[in-house]
Amino acid sequence: MRIAIVGVGLIGGSIGLAAHGRLGATVSGWSRSRSTLERALELGAIDRAGDSLADAVHDAEAVFVCAPVGVLPEVVADVLAAAPADCVVTDAGSTKRSVVEAIDDPRFVGGHPLAGAETAGVDHARADLFHDATWYLTPTPGATGVLFERLHRLIRELGARPATIDAATHDTMLAAVSHLPHVLANVLVAQAASALGDPTGGPASAGHVAGSGTPIGEQLPATGPSFRDATRVAGANSAIWTDIYLANRDALVEQLDGAVTRLNAVRAALIAADPAAVTAWNDAARDDRRRLQ
Amino acid sequence: MRIAIVGVGLIGGSIGLAAHGRLGATVSGWSRSRSTLERALELGAIDRAGDSLADAVHDAEAVFVCAPVGVLPEVVADVLAAAPADCVVTDAGSTKRSVVEAIDDPRFVGGHPLAGAETAGVDHARADLFHDATWYLTPTPGATGVLFERLHRLIRELGARPATIDAATHDTMLAAVSHLPHVLANVLVAQAASALGDPTGGPASAGHVAGSGTPIGEQLPATGPSFRDATRVAGANSAIWTDIYLANRDALVEQLDGAVTRLNAVRAALIAADPAAVTAWNDAARDDRRRLQ
Repeated sequence: MRIAIVGVGLIGGSIGLAAHGRLGATVSGWSRSRSTLERALELGAIDRAGDSLADAVHDAEAVFVCAPVGVLPEVVADVLAAAPADCVVTDAGSTKRSVVEAIDDPRFVGGHPLAGAETAGVDHARADLFHDATWYLTPTPGATGVLFERLHRLIRELGARPATIDAATHDTMLAAVSHLPHVLANVLVAQAASALGDPTGGPASAGHVAGSGTPIGEQLPATGPSFRDATRVAGANSAIWTDIYLANRDALVEQLDGAVTRLNAVRAALIAADPAAVTAWNDAARDDRRRLQ
Repeated sequence: MRIAIVGVGLIGGSIGLAAHGRLGATVSGWSRSRSTLERALELGAIDRAGDSLADAVHDAEAVFVCAPVGVLPEVVADVLAAAPADCVVTDAGSTKRSVVEAIDDPRFVGGHPLAGAETAGVDHARADLFHDATWYLTPTPGATGVLFERLHRLIRELGARPATIDAATHDTMLAAVSHLPHVLANVLVAQAASALGDPTGGPASAGHVAGSGTPIGEQLPATGPSFRDATRVAGANSAIWTDIYLANRDALVEQLDGAVTRLNAVRAALIAADPAAVTAWNDAARDDRRRLQ
């Protein structure tokens, strides 16, 4: 099996390691950054560095495009122009409509592995990154069946669980379970930073460790483990996330509007000092959480 | 040292275990529930079960009232009526103004240990629950100095880090770093449950595991570890949390309004498809998160 990877960062590099290690595939790679490409070669994430994008993909049976969401339509089109007629081309972007709607080629199938959110860069690539991870595939009706089947099998062989879904459903789901949580994490840290203030002028300056005169803001952990868990993804890499937020902005705006509606409903129950309404709302959240696990 | 504990659940039971084990104190206890009281005795969280609240506290040097926030003013008043003149009385409620403003007695000092959010009940009590935990104390100017000093020392001996703060600042801080995160976790699970829908009628029914015909909602983890972290506290015990939300509702409403303002600002940047604004907002969140850690 000959595989090409365009964009050899964390995701692309991990695909390369898994394809080489688990499938015995020959992996060629391409990156706009020569140093990234050389590092990928050094780490064994690719077997061969292309002289150009076209050179890297010219004899591939499958190409994984692992570029930022904002440039995917352009890069996927370049890959399709250079790839053989019987080659399947996929991507790994976190939103799917923008690329799927831009590309009209029976060799292309959109993809999105749910993995790797925490780190970036080929130095963090691992052959087992996709072990048991859900890997969404969003084929259009025009996709060539035999190429889709090849990709589906490949992804299973990389250790992941392929799941077919249409691009719009994917983007709605991800807006709710990933993009909205990232936005709310950002809101939480901004609110906390504002409430805790700076040690000289903010509200926290009223509090001191007894006998020490040291402001709480400097001395004590003002936030606990539950706050850290809730805000772990706050301020995630803008180079990746600005694209994701914008590419999925209509679905995300719907989620933001839903969140604001729910916040205003809680606000009304609080203003009314209505324990039954607060309890019913909280019990419903408990049930929702259980259903989601 | 003679210590009394009124309300012997997770927090009260853990105070008893630590007071007995680390301080060699004699611990008497009281609970409205006879079976809880007997279980606390069995577990060694208390040395003696009172025949009544008054009996449990009548010769104490320090009393910890570990009752739900909603009944604290009433229970603390009962304790103060029965406790000796040189006894310090404190509580462990998650909001402080409601009890501090209701009680006018130089023997009372409000308290709040940051521990135990995940479980409840005396069966989960542990002598090391407060190890290195921040334990807020909110003395009013009328508090007797020697009694405050006794409590402060006690809390340090229980293994915690006492931190003095005024009740209003405490409630603002906690609204931002604890109560708002709980509300947003509830909002997240409600949005996700709605977006993922039910397997027969919701949007998720459009997705199937290729070749199996099984809806994604039944077969696959639709949410990943980052979603689970962000929603771990969703639907926390209503018996505790309805009281907390309501007792701190003005501070929490301010946080909700702040969150809605921030969500609308992100919404505007998304609608305008303004990458510079989205990036600036996300980079600010990254900086806030670092400042909070």
